[in-house]
Amino acid sequence: MILVNGKAEDRIAIADRGLQYGDGLFETIAYRNGIAEFLQQHIERLLLGCKRLRINFNQVDLLKDEITQICDDLADDGVIKIIITRGSGGRGYLANPDMVATRIVSSHPLPSYSDDNAVKGVAVRFCQHILSDNLQLAGIKHLNRLDQVLARNEWTDSAISEGLMSNAHGNIVEGTMSNLFMVLDNKLITPLLTHAGIAGIVRARLITIAQDYGLEFEERDISRLDINNAQELFVCNSVIGIWPIRSIETISYPVGPITQLLQMLLAKSPK
Amino acid sequence: MILVNGKAEDRIAIADRGLQYGDGLFETIAYRNGIAEFLQQHIERLLLGCKRLRINFNQVDLLKDEITQICDDLADDGVIKIIITRGSGGRGYLANPDMVATRIVSSHPLPSYSDDNAVKGVAVRFCQHILSDNLQLAGIKHLNRLDQVLARNEWTDSAISEGLMSNAHGNIVEGTMSNLFMVLDNKLITPLLTHAGIAGIVRARLITIAQDYGLEFEERDISRLDINNAQELFVCNSVIGIWPIRSIETISYPVGPITQLLQMLLAKSPK
Repeated sequence: MILVNGKAEDRIAIADRGLQYGDGLFETIAYRNGIAEFLQQHIERLLLGCKRLRINFNQVDLLKDEITQICDDLADDGVIKIIITRGSGGRGYLANPDMVATRIVSSHPLPSYSDDNAVKGVAVRFCQHILSDNLQLAGIKHLNRLDQVLARNEWTDSAISEGLMSNAHGNIVEGTMSNLFMVLDNKLITPLLTHAGIAGIVRARLITIAQDYGLEFEERDISRLDINNAQELFVCNSVIGIWPIRSIETISYPVGPITQLLQMLLAKSPK
Repeated sequence: MILVNGKAEDRIAIADRGLQYGDGLFETIAYRNGIAEFLQQHIERLLLGCKRLRINFNQVDLLKDEITQICDDLADDGVIKIIITRGSGGRGYLANPDMVATRIVSSHPLPSYSDDNAVKGVAVRFCQHILSDNLQLAGIKHLNRLDQVLARNEWTDSAISEGLMSNAHGNIVEGTMSNLFMVLDNKLITPLLTHAGIAGIVRARLITIAQDYGLEFEERDISRLDINNAQELFVCNSVIGIWPIRSIETISYPVGPITQLLQMLLAKSPK
């Protein structure tokens, strides 16, 4: 089921700026056991993104109603995707300031990942495609996703569950669909996302959990050498939770105690 | 009139990757005096973009027929916009390799720019928004256009006709909708587009024209200081042709002889 501005539709105007320019944002929410997980956090990130892109989006209550409607329609667990675009039309790149944002809410089956991914870990690769560097667009979940598309389509081997993406300085920033954490010298570390990358909801929650628990934590640039030396590595997002990394190309990693601790704390954390 | 895969439509599937990820390309073609100008060059750039993004687009003959149909339907001069997306669906960023590209061809009125723009020149500003830096995406006219949207929406004063965009090194790369040329020390210079920017059709034509005419020409990084010192400056694209820049913020420039020469040669050049 898809709702476009509250109406059941499966199509959108060609003139919509989401198609014309990728002029919008999205959120991917896990719906499990009758709960749209981290809904408030997803909506807050969406509103932050709208503020950053100066998108006039004032229909949060309508959006919440539509999410409820989509969830109520789901017979099983699933994924809720929200797209907010700046709206339809405008003269080229210049948007009409009175333009009303387009709301798209859709439901999808949960991807069929093996339960082993979270337990035994996943095999991961390094992507060739380099992330775009942009201070003003970093962090938010906007619709300009060619970087991720090109990186994710570098491999089709289903034994490889994720690809790690670098910036132009060779630092590792994130996975194609996930954030990255590592344990090095017993410290939990995740890449800085000031110039590229999406600031994930689970990433933010894990930072809070780690700090509340008293784990040593740092946000900083992560080099390939850091990755080679890591004691533990994992990727995370709203749908997969935490997947330990058991190998990157020829290097193997254990599913370590801090990763397992965070999996347990995340599972217990309110959604 | 809009044709989607050859059918008159004004909407597109929500599942189309053009909307979901900006996973596609576009072209904007001037239709004047019964001619879709530089059509072959636009199609060649589109095919180059498809190759760079690894989009399976093999329906060039169908696309040409659709462009002809759209042109035949136009009572007057106008603009033809082509969008090619990777297609509809896929599992997240991963695309089905058998996916068929979506073709969208639409016609629009020519923008109502004053004829004075080409004669007396235009007032231009510097944009605050910095262009994303990406070696693999530079040059092609892909659908990830948030940089241009944010830059173009920095001003609404209709007396300012274009904004110049910088990269993270402070070099000027292009306008929000145009390429930039300058004359400095009697040499024609245009910015290198290796890390950002769109390699425009008129830009390419002007380079050929200038070299054929024997003008000294260089493609290189252009700094703010170069801009300050320029003897002549102009912006160009397929729809506007060449607009001399008569001022950038507080600095004025003459409509110079090389700009006028190139306007004349471009007008005479086969379309």
